[in-house]
Amino acid sequence: MRLTRIAAESFPLTTNMSNSRRALKEIRITAVAVECDVVREGKRLVGYGYSSFGRPSCHTQIRERMAPRVMAAPPEALLDEAGENFDPIRIWSHAAADEKPAGHAERSVAIGTLDLAVWDLVAKIEGMPLHRVLAERYGGGEVRESVFCYVGGGWYRPGQTLADLQAEMRAHLDAGYTQVKMKVGGLSRVEDCARVEAVLKVVGSGDHLAVDANAVFDQRMALERAASLAPYGLRWFEEPCNPLDYEAYKAVAASYGPPIASGECLSGAQELDNFLRYSALRPDRDILQLDPPLSYGVTEYLQILRVAQQHGFSRVSLWPHGGNLMSLHVAGGLGLGGSESYPGVFGAFGGFNREVTIERGYARLPKSPGLGFEEKPELLPLLRSLI
Amino acid sequence: MRLTRIAAESFPLTTNMSNSRRALKEIRITAVAVECDVVREGKRLVGYGYSSFGRPSCHTQIRERMAPRVMAAPPEALLDEAGENFDPIRIWSHAAADEKPAGHAERSVAIGTLDLAVWDLVAKIEGMPLHRVLAERYGGGEVRESVFCYVGGGWYRPGQTLADLQAEMRAHLDAGYTQVKMKVGGLSRVEDCARVEAVLKVVGSGDHLAVDANAVFDQRMALERAASLAPYGLRWFEEPCNPLDYEAYKAVAASYGPPIASGECLSGAQELDNFLRYSALRPDRDILQLDPPLSYGVTEYLQILRVAQQHGFSRVSLWPHGGNLMSLHVAGGLGLGGSESYPGVFGAFGGFNREVTIERGYARLPKSPGLGFEEKPELLPLLRSLI
Repeated sequence: MRLTRIAAESFPLTTNMSNSRRALKEIRITAVAVECDVVREGKRLVGYGYSSFGRPSCHTQIRERMAPRVMAAPPEALLDEAGENFDPIRIWSHAAADEKPAGHAERSVAIGTLDLAVWDLVAKIEGMPLHRVLAERYGGGEVRESVFCYVGGGWYRPGQTLADLQAEMRAHLDAGYTQVKMKVGGLSRVEDCARVEAVLKVVGSGDHLAVDANAVFDQRMALERAASLAPYGLRWFEEPCNPLDYEAYKAVAASYGPPIASGECLSGAQELDNFLRYSALRPDRDILQLDPPLSYGVTEYLQILRVAQQHGFSRVSLWPHGGNLMSLHVAGGLGLGGSESYPGVFGAFGGFNREVTIERGYARLPKSPGLGFEEKPELLPLLRSLI
Repeated sequence: MRLTRIAAESFPLTTNMSNSRRALKEIRITAVAVECDVVREGKRLVGYGYSSFGRPSCHTQIRERMAPRVMAAPPEALLDEAGENFDPIRIWSHAAADEKPAGHAERSVAIGTLDLAVWDLVAKIEGMPLHRVLAERYGGGEVRESVFCYVGGGWYRPGQTLADLQAEMRAHLDAGYTQVKMKVGGLSRVEDCARVEAVLKVVGSGDHLAVDANAVFDQRMALERAASLAPYGLRWFEEPCNPLDYEAYKAVAASYGPPIASGECLSGAQELDNFLRYSALRPDRDILQLDPPLSYGVTEYLQILRVAQQHGFSRVSLWPHGGNLMSLHVAGGLGLGGSESYPGVFGAFGGFNREVTIERGYARLPKSPGLGFEEKPELLPLLRSLI
């Protein structure tokens, strides 16, 4: 049993949306396919992954570094003890070999994306959905049927009115979601508060609404905004500041009572370890959102979970960023707090697949093998074009 | 006055050397050329930079993200107030626009390499060596003739004997250097100590010798090695641990009296700020080695210097990694403690240029405009092939 090919390609993401820090027009999505010599129904099995949202392309790194390292390894070195499947942890070790310490960033995307494709393949070989493989191996064996899921929405759009924003949120509720998230920090305090209040009228109360500042504030501005937001009792206040500014998080956590969320820009377990060691976030309420393909993959997520637990956080403190099938499987498989969802945005890469239905705030987990991209007809041709 | 073209390409670095963590065979060098419409002697002026050593290629990032952002800016937005030269800080801001916060790494290489080429061009337009431009703008106006310089050598090589290592070090002293550095951590404690003692016989005493572990140790092993090395009274013990492991550095600094050095793997001012805030390194003796093209460029180095000073370190605490003309100009121009040198290794990319002579431990700074790659005939054809 051996890997026969690894392919990577990047694709543009065409959108006019922006968060409080930047327009998203430059974002590119990197997709990876990992092919092996195991034949099912007359065809070689192929694993797929893609790089979530928020980072530029990383196919060159994968083609130049990670893929050749993995392909150069003796085939048996990539297998599990029994030789019956690929061992993602061993493949990850080969992919990451010879990288410098510290300064993770893009390489965490390249390695993480490749790692997701490997896990997809491994789950396909097992003939199970990935969440079930993860639940059996690392989730205490409890296989889940559904995961709590909220909509990462409320983006700033050109010409948008408060009524437009309310209509968007109403549509999410009508689709079965019970919690939504919206952007803050892109307008003045007064204008953003008006937006928040407009959405609160739709969702009913603060525990159904989170806000996301995409790290636009410095410490002083974050404290000012935190004071304005506190009376709303929101579900959480996400990324008030750059997550490497531990002192700023410490100050916000000392003055803002409701939950704080962060972690989408942390690139792995070591950065999380420092963040939790110095930021004084609160294990009883705060939320950690590291994104699987952006932060070294599912393999690293096992270490991310371990580090969170060492700092007193529990599995339900983790809510992976990303709003795609990859984060959904990780949340479901590891028993995490919940998952994000991006219905109707990000084109073929956005959303889950046709197996996933939303009911009373919960997403029903897919049953097809692997991540389930084969049940996502808008994306599948693109993934299949890689190999 | 406008930029007319930015080009980037990567080249393999063929070597059989390794440090204690890894073989260097995968390292690629990314070179950048920035062309403008200013004509001198009948030709358009071109600035060059390359990505130092230690990271993989970053030409794709530069081609896809940084170069198009800069080229899309209105030409006047890239000029200084007087409109007489390009403003590297404004160009840097355009190059870095729309990147996510935190997780710097490879993008710091892409942006930093581009930034070096911009500074080369700016100094060429001024008709001065870069170190003089930096000295006049940021170094208090004191233009220096020379910079202290040590050899980053003592690599592990296949089949090497202690006599080979001693012969290498003797050659460095014969070439005019008074301080050398060697690798540790790639062999057992006993074998590495035998190597150190062999080199001490050549260089005379510990203040002429530094050692470099390339972050191979965890905290326990670093403390063990520090105890073995302390009696030698070495110039410094470099990168005992991963520089994101602040607690490990704190432990080493608490138990090891002689200087500690680190920073080559930190990717900018914010990572240095956290490192100095939490690692308890000692401003009266410890050494900071951030590498200009690897850590967002000369533009960022001004912030790096500011952060170091905020934590009580002085200019002479900074010794930029890299062993090339770029670090030499930065060290000379900003009045830093010293510079590294890599004579005879890394092929066309290694070493300074034919203007730079070494005498009694000091490197004489180049006098030709810019970084001086035009006086480096082994590298120039390659750089010129870009545009």
